[in-house]
Amino acid sequence: MKENNNFSSLEIGVVGLGLMGTSILVSLLVSGHKVIGIAPLPADMDGAMDRIESQLNHAAEAGLLKEAVSHYLGRLHLSEDYNKLKHCRLVQECVTEVISIKTEVYKKINKHTAASTIIATNTSAIPISELQENVKFPSQFIGIHWAEPAYMTRFLEVTKGALTDEKTAEWVLSLSYSWKKEPTYLKKDIRGFVTNRMLYAVYREMFAILENGEASMEDIDKAFRYDAGSWITYMGLFKRMDQLGLSDFKEIFDNLFKELDNSSTVPPTMQEIVIQKGKGINNGKGFYNYTKKEAAAWEEAFKSFNHEIFQLAAQYPELNQ
Amino acid sequence: MKENNNFSSLEIGVVGLGLMGTSILVSLLVSGHKVIGIAPLPADMDGAMDRIESQLNHAAEAGLLKEAVSHYLGRLHLSEDYNKLKHCRLVQECVTEVISIKTEVYKKINKHTAASTIIATNTSAIPISELQENVKFPSQFIGIHWAEPAYMTRFLEVTKGALTDEKTAEWVLSLSYSWKKEPTYLKKDIRGFVTNRMLYAVYREMFAILENGEASMEDIDKAFRYDAGSWITYMGLFKRMDQLGLSDFKEIFDNLFKELDNSSTVPPTMQEIVIQKGKGINNGKGFYNYTKKEAAAWEEAFKSFNHEIFQLAAQYPELNQ
Repeated sequence: MKENNNFSSLEIGVVGLGLMGTSILVSLLVSGHKVIGIAPLPADMDGAMDRIESQLNHAAEAGLLKEAVSHYLGRLHLSEDYNKLKHCRLVQECVTEVISIKTEVYKKINKHTAASTIIATNTSAIPISELQENVKFPSQFIGIHWAEPAYMTRFLEVTKGALTDEKTAEWVLSLSYSWKKEPTYLKKDIRGFVTNRMLYAVYREMFAILENGEASMEDIDKAFRYDAGSWITYMGLFKRMDQLGLSDFKEIFDNLFKELDNSSTVPPTMQEIVIQKGKGINNGKGFYNYTKKEAAAWEEAFKSFNHEIFQLAAQYPELNQ
Repeated sequence: MKENNNFSSLEIGVVGLGLMGTSILVSLLVSGHKVIGIAPLPADMDGAMDRIESQLNHAAEAGLLKEAVSHYLGRLHLSEDYNKLKHCRLVQECVTEVISIKTEVYKKINKHTAASTIIATNTSAIPISELQENVKFPSQFIGIHWAEPAYMTRFLEVTKGALTDEKTAEWVLSLSYSWKKEPTYLKKDIRGFVTNRMLYAVYREMFAILENGEASMEDIDKAFRYDAGSWITYMGLFKRMDQLGLSDFKEIFDNLFKELDNSSTVPPTMQEIVIQKGKGINNGKGFYNYTKKEAAAWEEAFKSFNHEIFQLAAQYPELNQ
């Protein structure tokens, strides 16, 4: 792979300019790429540039930028015109989780890019192999799933679909190391991939606890935050079991697995939130309620937290992997 | 509750001097209590004092101590004689997760303490109501479940059994606030309580991913560490959903819950570890392998991480609770 040493000279496209899309785009800018950002709908352009500037400033405050913010903005082009993607080696799709919308986006990308262009989806819900059926060059299609804020987390899930070329996956993994990510490589394309499977197993169980009246929402949040939150940044869960000495786990698995929730339907509390049009901190209505001021203070504090946890994690690389 | 303002003058007992027991004992010393530590078996005394000193030094380095380490050691008495518990207002049991052993311990505690003495168990696997059947004063029996290191986490789960007096629970909650904990209160006594239910739902799912050959152990560990590890110290999971804007969750629940693992048996990989007598970092054999040097370096680094994550979390109290 002769491009290995010069990844940053590649031009990369991002389609979809929501919170996640601009966050990915900023990560790519910070890694030195020239980036084309495409708004699939004119309305998607609203606020996108403001958010990008604010995210770049956030990265600057965390000491992640080698150049001034203006340098990175100079390497960015936002447009509604898919033809601007024509020189891109990779196009990252980051639009809503609806197959028909994504398929439409892939058609437009294929129309304006070379056969060698790799299309990556940020989906965390739809199988790559399913989306792959609707693209022109399936061997060049892959999953690259980011975590927010993309420019300040090491997380990345790379997922191969049934028709993805092994070389495409290898190239994407090499590229992602140049972004200073710690990619997880999923060879089989399971629904939800790794992190989401694990997180949604928690979601399912916590809704069961709530709806059975066993503990309050606040207490469920506190419990996980103050337990897992005190070690998960340092180690994964297999390693956590090793650290605890492994002795009681078999016994507890035996007692507890049969008690866990196995439901396959959307919990009533979640259904209700959707009916009430709750958008969380976006409109102040969610599992909790927020005034505009509270939501803003919360986001501001999270930005600063992100910065600190990122730096803390960097001090503790794996000792044994 | 007249004792409210003077909790620290209370004498507290801890039965069981394993890693968790000494860690709890150190937390109680740091909160100002006089502490009686009981070794249920003579061998339990081995290494206990060394570990307590090392944990107190750890707390000192983190700036948690008002007095010198020697002051706290002067307020500690280790013994094999349960009669030393006679002045204790609360006795925390922290022995292995076997009902018959715990029952024997409660008998000995009851024999030497007053009717008003509260007995708390640190179990995370056995229902409080079940253990409660075997104590002399069930209304005075409760679950207090700690996280390691107990003196440097805010986590605490307080669980009422079917026969626990409401006043006992209230008193324990007040006491735990004086320890600067953020207790979760579980009114119904469900197996596994809150955090363990949530964590074991993750364990179940991650073993399924591993055993289906979908991702490697290392990649599963990386995925959860680098995703959840970048935000869980800041917020619980209901709040995380609010932060992400809630929009795709119903859809994903609908698609994903039915794909999650529902097994009720111990996974083969776990069975195998038990057969191989793996004790994780304690004997270098676990999901990963460790030399003595690696295990020591890992524990040392975790101590320093604990200290930093504890201070980081303290800077970000709840904004909206």
